Amino acid sequence: MGALRRRLTRAGLPGLLVTQPPDIRYLCGFTGSSAALAVTRRGGRMFTDGRYTAQAAEEVKAAQVEIVSSSPAVAASQWLAAQPGVAVAGFDPTKTTVAELARWKSGLPSRLRRGFFQALPAPLVELLRSVKDGDELALMAEAALTGCKLFEHVLGVLRPGVAEVEVAAELEYQARIMGAEGMSFETIVAAGLRSAMPHGRATTAPLPRRGFVTMDFGIIHKGYCSDMTRTVFLGKPKPGERRAYEAVLEAQVNAVNAVAAGVSCAEVDEAARAVLRREGLADAFTHSTGHGVGLEIHEAPRVGAGQATRLQPGMVITIEPGVYLAGRFGIRIEDMVAVTRSGGQVLTLAPKALIEL
Amino acid sequence: MGALRRRLTRAGLPGLLVTQPPDIRYLCGFTGSSAALAVTRRGGRMFTDGRYTAQAAEEVKAAQVEIVSSSPAVAASQWLAAQPGVAVAGFDPTKTTVAELARWKSGLPSRLRRGFFQALPAPLVELLRSVKDGDELALMAEAALTGCKLFEHVLGVLRPGVAEVEVAAELEYQARIMGAEGMSFETIVAAGLRSAMPHGRATTAPLPRRGFVTMDFGIIHKGYCSDMTRTVFLGKPKPGERRAYEAVLEAQVNAVNAVAAGVSCAEVDEAARAVLRREGLADAFTHSTGHGVGLEIHEAPRVGAGQATRLQPGMVITIEPGVYLAGRFGIRIEDMVAVTRSGGQVLTLAPKALIEL
Repeated sequence: MGALRRRLTRAGLPGLLVTQPPDIRYLCGFTGSSAALAVTRRGGRMFTDGRYTAQAAEEVKAAQVEIVSSSPAVAASQWLAAQPGVAVAGFDPTKTTVAELARWKSGLPSRLRRGFFQALPAPLVELLRSVKDGDELALMAEAALTGCKLFEHVLGVLRPGVAEVEVAAELEYQARIMGAEGMSFETIVAAGLRSAMPHGRATTAPLPRRGFVTMDFGIIHKGYCSDMTRTVFLGKPKPGERRAYEAVLEAQVNAVNAVAAGVSCAEVDEAARAVLRREGLADAFTHSTGHGVGLEIHEAPRVGAGQATRLQPGMVITIEPGVYLAGRFGIRIEDMVAVTRSGGQVLTLAPKALIEL
Repeated sequence: MGALRRRLTRAGLPGLLVTQPPDIRYLCGFTGSSAALAVTRRGGRMFTDGRYTAQAAEEVKAAQVEIVSSSPAVAASQWLAAQPGVAVAGFDPTKTTVAELARWKSGLPSRLRRGFFQALPAPLVELLRSVKDGDELALMAEAALTGCKLFEHVLGVLRPGVAEVEVAAELEYQARIMGAEGMSFETIVAAGLRSAMPHGRATTAPLPRRGFVTMDFGIIHKGYCSDMTRTVFLGKPKPGERRAYEAVLEAQVNAVNAVAAGVSCAEVDEAARAVLRREGLADAFTHSTGHGVGLEIHEAPRVGAGQATRLQPGMVITIEPGVYLAGRFGIRIEDMVAVTRSGGQVLTLAPKALIEL
C-alpha cells in the first residue's frame, strides 16, 4: 500500500478505486470475490458485503473494512468523493466495464459525475504486482516445484493408447492430492499431429505409438499460479524431429540466459527468435516468448517483439518458445524464470533434454 | 441471426458489435477466443486473426468471415461504420471495458467518435441465448446426465477421512474420462462444519465421521454447462439435521413445481423461500434461488426476489435453495430445470431423498 500511495502522489492522483480481485488481494490480503478498495494518500478502505464479515476481519491488512448492503464499488466511490482533498480518482479502464463506470458515477453528486473518475494511463497495481517480494517468490517457487513433481508423475502414465484427457485428468487429480487450490488454466495435452496446435485442449484422442506429446499446465498455490510446458517423445524420434526439438531447446535456453535486470522484454524475445530464425523455423514460432505470472496466469510484463519494458529484480516471467508445423508436429518448452540482479533463476527445474518414452 | 436482426430492427438499431465469445459462438458457431462479430439488418461479418483461418472456415455459419492482422473489434467497428445506413451501432456495456470502447472509437473517423456507439439498454444476445432451441436442450440434457453419473460414481468414494479435495479430484477425473471438455466452475465439496459455507471450495480437510457433505459441480459438454448440487450425510443424522434437510428438499421441490412458462422468476424464488420461512429458516437461506445456465454457467435469467422476468419455454434455470447455519451445518439441493409450456422438466435426475452413507 505504501508503494501504491507513492505512485499515486507521483501521478498527481489523490484517490484510486480498485475493483479487481487479484489487485485487492495483493494490496490488502482479502480473497473474497465481491469487494472494492478505495485508496487515498492517507490510507485504504475496503468495502464488501455481509457474507464476508468474518473473512474480511481475518484477512484484511493495511486497510479499514466497511461492510455495506449495496454495491461495494458504489459505496467505495461515494466514500472517495467525500474525502477532503479528493477531487479526482483513478481507475483501471482495462478492467472496468462501461456499465460499471456508469454505475459508479450514478452514485455520485451530479456535479462530480463528469470529471471525478479518471482512466489510469497504465495499470498501476498490476505493474506493482509484476515485481514480487521475497514471500511471493517463495510461494511461486513452491508452486513451480509442485508443477515439476506433477510432470515427473505424469511421465509414468504416458503410453500409446492412453487418451489425452486421461493424461490431463491424472495431472489434475495429482495436483489436487498435492494440495493445489486448482489449476491455473485449462490443461493442455496435445499429442502427435495435434501437437502442432499451440493451444490444443486435451481431447479423447489416444496418444500415438510415436510422436511428440506437449503438456502445458499449471497449478494455484496460495493464490499464486505456476506455468510450465514440457514436450516428450513416444517412441524413437527421426533426425528431423530431434533437430527441431534441439532448436526449440536452444532457443529456450538462449532466452533464459538473456534474462537479467535491465534487459528489455523485446531482447529476451529476440534471443529465442534468433535461434529459430537461424534454423529456418522463424515462421513456425507463431506466438510471443512469454509473459509475467503471479496472482494471475497472464500478467505484466509481456515478453514479445517490440516490448520495451525492462526487466526488474523480482519479476517472474515465462520463457516458452515453440515451433508448430501443421500436418507434422509441434514442440514447446516453457519455464518460469525469476529475474535477479545478475540473471534469471529458473523456478521449474524439471529436465528439458528430450525424453523418449 | 434472424431473431437478432428482428430485435435490432425493433430497437431502432441499424448495427451491433458483438465481442463476447459465448455470444459469438451462439450467433455464428465460432469457438475461437479472438473474434468480433458485426451485425447489420442485412447480415453478419465475423472478424478474426490468421491463427483461426482454418477454424473459422470450418465453424462459422450465417456470417461472412474476414481475417485481419489488427484488432478484430476495431476492424469490425470500422466495417460497421462504413456500411450504408449504419449511423449508430449497439454494444453491450456490461461486457465492454472502458478501454475497449475507447479503442473502438479511436479507429473511427473523428466525426463518428462521439455518437456512433450506443450502449444497449439490455443484453440483447444474452437474452436470446436464454431461450434454448431443441438442439441446445438436447446438449444440456446430456451435460446434466453426465453430472448425474458423476454424482453416482462419487458416492463410492465418500467416507470419513477422505479429503474434500480427493472427492473433487475424483469428480473431475471421472468427468474428463467421460469426455467432458472441463468443469463449468470450481468444484465445491464442503463437509461437516464447512458445509455451512455456501461456496466452500474443496480443502484438504478430511470428511468427518458424521455430518453433511455438500457437492456442487458441473461439466462442459460441447460448450454447454451443467450445474447440480447434492448434499448427503455421513453417518446417522439427528432429528434436527433430518428436519432441516427435509425443509430444503421441500423448498426445492416446491420451486421446481412452480416453474412454468409465464411464471415470474420472483414467484419461483418465493416458492422456495416460503417453505423455508414457514420452517423458521428464512434467514439461513442467504442467496437467490437460481440462475439461467447454458453456454455460460451464470446467464440470464436471474431467479431471485424482485426479478420480474417471466419464464419462457426453452429457458434452462437452476433451482438451488440452501440453508447455512454457521457452526452447525449447511444443506443445498440443486437441479437444472428446463421450462416447458406446461411446467418444468428436471434435467438432473439423480435422487434427492437424503442419502446416508
